[in-house]
Amino acid sequence: MIDLIKTYRVIGGKKVNLSSYPTRADESLGDRASVSKFTEEMINRMRDLQYRLYVEAKQSLLIVLQAPDAAGKDGTIRRVLGRMNPQGCRTYPFKVPSSLELRHDFLWRIHACVPGAGQVSIFNRSHYEDVLIARVDSLVPPKVWQRRYDHINAFESLLADRGTKILKFYLHISHEEQLDRFESRLDEPEKHWKLNAGDYAARDQWDDYRKAYEDAMRKCSTPESPWFVIPADQKWYRDAVIAGIVAQTLEKMDPKLPKLDVDLEQIRQLYEAARSKLSG
Amino acid sequence: MIDLIKTYRVIGGKKVNLSSYPTRADESLGDRASVSKFTEEMINRMRDLQYRLYVEAKQSLLIVLQAPDAAGKDGTIRRVLGRMNPQGCRTYPFKVPSSLELRHDFLWRIHACVPGAGQVSIFNRSHYEDVLIARVDSLVPPKVWQRRYDHINAFESLLADRGTKILKFYLHISHEEQLDRFESRLDEPEKHWKLNAGDYAARDQWDDYRKAYEDAMRKCSTPESPWFVIPADQKWYRDAVIAGIVAQTLEKMDPKLPKLDVDLEQIRQLYEAARSKLSG
Repeated sequence: MIDLIKTYRVIGGKKVNLSSYPTRADESLGDRASVSKFTEEMINRMRDLQYRLYVEAKQSLLIVLQAPDAAGKDGTIRRVLGRMNPQGCRTYPFKVPSSLELRHDFLWRIHACVPGAGQVSIFNRSHYEDVLIARVDSLVPPKVWQRRYDHINAFESLLADRGTKILKFYLHISHEEQLDRFESRLDEPEKHWKLNAGDYAARDQWDDYRKAYEDAMRKCSTPESPWFVIPADQKWYRDAVIAGIVAQTLEKMDPKLPKLDVDLEQIRQLYEAARSKLSG
Repeated sequence: MIDLIKTYRVIGGKKVNLSSYPTRADESLGDRASVSKFTEEMINRMRDLQYRLYVEAKQSLLIVLQAPDAAGKDGTIRRVLGRMNPQGCRTYPFKVPSSLELRHDFLWRIHACVPGAGQVSIFNRSHYEDVLIARVDSLVPPKVWQRRYDHINAFESLLADRGTKILKFYLHISHEEQLDRFESRLDEPEKHWKLNAGDYAARDQWDDYRKAYEDAMRKCSTPESPWFVIPADQKWYRDAVIAGIVAQTLEKMDPKLPKLDVDLEQIRQLYEAARSKLSG
């Protein structure tokens, strides 16, 4: 089987060319049926390991999802990441900053949502918007967003030093598949609320966003906090790759259930005494 | 079929006697297989309605779970409530207050976690601990905890006025079933970390807790924020009742997808133009 982490991880420091990354399945992982079986196995493995992470309460996992519109961030959360136990996992959508948030540095609202020991945070969009939309739409001058890559690296390294593993997923969808998905929303009344003319405007900025993503990955993909480019044209394959990378990452983190510091025999005797009292 | 809301809701203002509430299944709901089928239907209904609640972004749902040890709060979250979409739903465990939290009134940390418009919050323990353990273990003098029922009612009515529906579930487990579950943990190494001598101590306070719960329900079960006593000796039945009450409550809240304010035909034309540009 292919090594998912190695195959889809971005090596930082070098020029990144998104066109050289596939948007479709690698057939060596098998056909759709066997890939979906693999996904279920990985999700179960992820859930088991998340339980251990939670009980161990030492390490943390932060998952960042970034993608063009309709690339499947919501679906990835619903079908894969959201199947973690919610007691140890929270999802944070980062939308247009509020007026309070804008009165702070761009990492202030992010820092408030990072996972504590034993916890997982899922970011639906993130601090990377501050070097993506902020750059493409000129929300701040270049000298402001250009400084942000260093700030991001320093911030992520602070988290890593406290025991947080960071996985950053870019859902890589082709321009054609995006258009198909936009069009299919027209036929699904339950999804009409998602429609807006802005989707179409963003399509015009496709190349600008590509360039902004490539720079963010080049500057901010590090061994402790890597970017991954996930083939996202086929939902079943996207799910498999993400489930696999998360499960394999948790495996490497190797969370351990704490050693028992109580006397099992003593507890057993207490229970037995209680039982005779109840029946007596 | 029995009306779950009516059957298990506590009418406030009158003396509550927990012994008069069943801890086991009402057989009129059917046998275990048909009850489990009902549970799945209710969970699917709950998920559909939660999607609408999220998109509508007007109303909120707050679910409070309280119970003796081993009564199944974690299992209820894992098997039922945790199956909501995590993008609109967060779980908050309230443990021993931190030193910062203790420097505030008892509702300060709770208020920070209530659901915003479109959101669901699940409280694993809650502000009710401040009239339960605080009373049973004399953490504060009686004149302090006695004042708290009024504070709780005022607080919950503030939330209700802003569009928050509150459901408070007491998982009602028999003393015998609790002992069975404690004992079974001895045989499951994955659960040994849950064992501590405190479980046994709390068993000695069983009657004190009962009385404290009965008072909390009498004083704080209101039509806008009712308490429910859920039979919890059988996990499958507990799941069915909770899934049913949540689904039926969401049904009554009747969240609506927003009306479409875009011109579908205009969007269709934009997409068609984009398609010919792509293929051209």
